[in-house]
Amino acid sequence: MKHTNTAQISTAPDAAKFLASLMLFKPCTDKEIDGLLEGFVSERHNKGHLLFTYSENAQRYYIIKSGWVKLYRETLDGAQAIIDILPQRHVFGETAIFEDSTYPYSAEVIEPAEILSLSLKKLKNLIESNPKFALAMLTSMARYRRYQDQEIEHRSLQNAPQRIGCFMLRLTPAHTDPGSKGPITIHLPYDKTMIAARLGMQPETFSRALAKLRDATGIEVKGSTIEIGNIGSLIAYTCSACTNEFPCQDMDCSSCGA
Amino acid sequence: MKHTNTAQISTAPDAAKFLASLMLFKPCTDKEIDGLLEGFVSERHNKGHLLFTYSENAQRYYIIKSGWVKLYRETLDGAQAIIDILPQRHVFGETAIFEDSTYPYSAEVIEPAEILSLSLKKLKNLIESNPKFALAMLTSMARYRRYQDQEIEHRSLQNAPQRIGCFMLRLTPAHTDPGSKGPITIHLPYDKTMIAARLGMQPETFSRALAKLRDATGIEVKGSTIEIGNIGSLIAYTCSACTNEFPCQDMDCSSCGA
Repeated sequence: MKHTNTAQISTAPDAAKFLASLMLFKPCTDKEIDGLLEGFVSERHNKGHLLFTYSENAQRYYIIKSGWVKLYRETLDGAQAIIDILPQRHVFGETAIFEDSTYPYSAEVIEPAEILSLSLKKLKNLIESNPKFALAMLTSMARYRRYQDQEIEHRSLQNAPQRIGCFMLRLTPAHTDPGSKGPITIHLPYDKTMIAARLGMQPETFSRALAKLRDATGIEVKGSTIEIGNIGSLIAYTCSACTNEFPCQDMDCSSCGA
Repeated sequence: MKHTNTAQISTAPDAAKFLASLMLFKPCTDKEIDGLLEGFVSERHNKGHLLFTYSENAQRYYIIKSGWVKLYRETLDGAQAIIDILPQRHVFGETAIFEDSTYPYSAEVIEPAEILSLSLKKLKNLIESNPKFALAMLTSMARYRRYQDQEIEHRSLQNAPQRIGCFMLRLTPAHTDPGSKGPITIHLPYDKTMIAARLGMQPETFSRALAKLRDATGIEVKGSTIEIGNIGSLIAYTCSACTNEFPCQDMDCSSCGA
């Protein structure tokens, strides 16, 4: 199940350069990065590839070089709860170190991806030997916690069209001027059924809410391309039910550890 | 605002004993605990006392010795998003270390509480000097993350009566036998309006959902006392829409750091 696609695609120098570019590994020396990479695997996976399953024994953690990965859990009767959908530069599976070495969720590739996997044991050793790295890891977890707080908040305070509006605003280029007049074009990164699940909605609710958002803010939807004619209007509609102001601090997913 | 009630109620030896009893501080020597406690303050606060507000400059973190504390944020138009409601033995405000020294939420006492406050600077120094403590802090954050994952999941998969059922099951004594026949009595720890907000519901939704839960599972509600006649029935109704099985791993809030 794990190794349907075993071509090593990143070389060691590639992988070292990639790791060094991530905020989490900034406090590491070149030698420490080489140590972390010992025995690393870099693979390309197709959509649908299962990387690991909930409660499975964990030896490795993962970093997304490109593509998208879904983290989820399943109820006894088979319903799926999506915990998060992660883009490139995100680390996952690493908290297994603190969870009796089992994964706290399942992970599946949802758009073709290149993924590095590295040894959890070497990660743990580094936490214990480099206090600055431990602090970087804590910082990354605190940021993710803030992002989750925001997620819980949105499920309480935002209605479905606002949740979709928020998802779109996070896809606009960082530092977009809220007063900007020209149209902004964004592309939905994965299919709408998956976006609905990510936002905790049924597909029918998503379609209805998208239509309502379009009517309220004048966005144009053409398949997976969205044209935002007036970003001020989208912000006014969406962000009134949020404790953050646009552009929000945790807008960039990559602040959560990447 | 901060010091409406300044009587120092825990002595230093008391506070040291309390800290040493918390999972988070297990890796600390007596000397390290004394260091953390230097300049500590222990105060009793009434319901409604505001400990700190969102984005305020942070010098101290807090530990609940008794009582309940609400963490929340507010939207521009004054709606309140409850991030969590914490019982005794919980630490809060500590992630300000990793957030440019500002609090990521506001904190208010909702039931009379005794609260210790300690220096964030000394906490940060300890993280940098004791790798085992850094690891304990990471473990605590990973557990809280799992608890938040669960929260997000419940907002997607559970209906309102199931969310209330889950809240009640978490109040049953740990290690309750799911097959147990006798009635179990629990007491709601704070008022129903607050429980509704904690579960992301309007008070009207809460009342309707509580009635539905009563009809479906045979619980009896007398003010803030709930009698669960048949816990198996409550579990069957509630936990079918959850990825955990009763008794769930993160049932005990105190696993999240306390």
